[in-house]
Amino acid sequence: MSTIDTTLLPHPTGAAATLAAAHATPHPLQLYGGWFCPFVQRAWIVLAEKRVPHQYVEINPYKKEPHFLALNPRGLVPTLAVEVGGGEKKRRALYESTVICEYLDESYSDEGQYGARLLPAGSGEGEVYERARCRLWINHVVTRVVPGFYRLLQHTPEKGYPIEEARTEFLKGVREFAREMVDSGSGKSGPWFLGERFSLVDVMLAPWAKRLFLIDHYKPGGVGIPKKGERGEDEEVWARWDEWFGAIVERESVKATWSEEEKYIEAYKRYAEDTTQSEVGQATRQGRSLP
Amino acid sequence: MSTIDTTLLPHPTGAAATLAAAHATPHPLQLYGGWFCPFVQRAWIVLAEKRVPHQYVEINPYKKEPHFLALNPRGLVPTLAVEVGGGEKKRRALYESTVICEYLDESYSDEGQYGARLLPAGSGEGEVYERARCRLWINHVVTRVVPGFYRLLQHTPEKGYPIEEARTEFLKGVREFAREMVDSGSGKSGPWFLGERFSLVDVMLAPWAKRLFLIDHYKPGGVGIPKKGERGEDEEVWARWDEWFGAIVERESVKATWSEEEKYIEAYKRYAEDTTQSEVGQATRQGRSLP
Repeated sequence: MSTIDTTLLPHPTGAAATLAAAHATPHPLQLYGGWFCPFVQRAWIVLAEKRVPHQYVEINPYKKEPHFLALNPRGLVPTLAVEVGGGEKKRRALYESTVICEYLDESYSDEGQYGARLLPAGSGEGEVYERARCRLWINHVVTRVVPGFYRLLQHTPEKGYPIEEARTEFLKGVREFAREMVDSGSGKSGPWFLGERFSLVDVMLAPWAKRLFLIDHYKPGGVGIPKKGERGEDEEVWARWDEWFGAIVERESVKATWSEEEKYIEAYKRYAEDTTQSEVGQATRQGRSLP
Repeated sequence: MSTIDTTLLPHPTGAAATLAAAHATPHPLQLYGGWFCPFVQRAWIVLAEKRVPHQYVEINPYKKEPHFLALNPRGLVPTLAVEVGGGEKKRRALYESTVICEYLDESYSDEGQYGARLLPAGSGEGEVYERARCRLWINHVVTRVVPGFYRLLQHTPEKGYPIEEARTEFLKGVREFAREMVDSGSGKSGPWFLGERFSLVDVMLAPWAKRLFLIDHYKPGGVGIPKKGERGEDEEVWARWDEWFGAIVERESVKATWSEEEKYIEAYKRYAEDTTQSEVGQATRQGRSLP
């Protein structure tokens, strides 16, 4: 069936290997992840941003190893093992990258120790609204940008529609994200979605921003973001995207959780050929909601 | 194209009509909704649960009326119009039912005035974990149960797979939800997902629970939840589902936001025939992530 089971490199490389090695010691808080998985990278970025003590455990999500299934019967990565309860602690599994990231931000909430909260956390009217706006655009990333990325990456000539259709749809999602950054005026104070303040909105999109080069590598016409001077009425919007993108790929936590570029090219060959057995890849192929 | 534009009843009926009439006076907090829409009902339930002063504005989401598009260019319901900012208030639109519900719970957070929070809100270890667990199962409802509902309701003999496949998938999602309620032991203290405490997890699923009768009405074999005594090893799990279901359909906020049953049968005919032009219906037909 799925030959990726055996050909997938079983460990991170480059900066991510260094980070994993620094977090190899047993710890009650464990992140189970696969080095190539962007959903895992979201959780990993949050741990790195907040310098949360933890153990990183590399897992091949296609293999469903028994010790991992015992922790999380769904076998999904990322999975976060946590200990909860007063007195006798119980080991519990959390999964879904968005849930894990928000959990980590709320659990390690001491700003003196762990840095600024990654979602506006106040109870004042303005903070509550900004938090909702962040969730709205996280939702946009989850339901539009990410599915669009896989539809484009997994497009093959055999599909019943031209690649241009997948590209247009993906770029629409990215452009709407960039337009919100223009409309909100956040660019005046900094490169991030919220301007000066790095947040979970940035975290949620960062792993796919880092993987855009795979579309350029594998797909005719590539990502297709229009070039400067050829952007018509979207000049300002795409310039804001460039600013965000330039900042995100240089963010320490993003770089620290990144393996060697050619390893991603190998790992994503099956996505590009639309033969991957990953859950997200299969859902895309079958035209289903992403897991 | 879409004849539902003109045939859709333009106002709620029954209990929901009474509730809408009681909230017809202009107010800075406005819920724009369509009476038949389950995503709208989520937000409406939260407003009713917390007795939040607001104006309800009935909108036909297929019509894209200019005054509504001026507020929310995406034209999606539910849309919540809010006023934010100190001094000169600005009118802002929030959408996405999950975002709106969490926003309302956080904005109207005074438990003396608005009743218990609908997500565990504490910062202690146990509350943070329970909040994450709630989000995990809200995610389950959003990504598994709800898409499964539409796949089953919109199944027609022309599809390339038998209805049994759609039914099995839907029941799997529901059963996993019920199994979590058994495994967590919440049934010992009350009928809700968290036991004694009614929460956003219940809110997120309630509108589709109320609409299960549409599948029984329109689809051969119906929902197909196995009967008592014929549930094999799942006896306890389905009994817990029955308990939750019995409680949710009797919840005051759920009943208060419900129109006359036969009106839903009319409104959902096009879903059952798989000819609806609704965004969620089209996404299901095309095999896409739900909007």
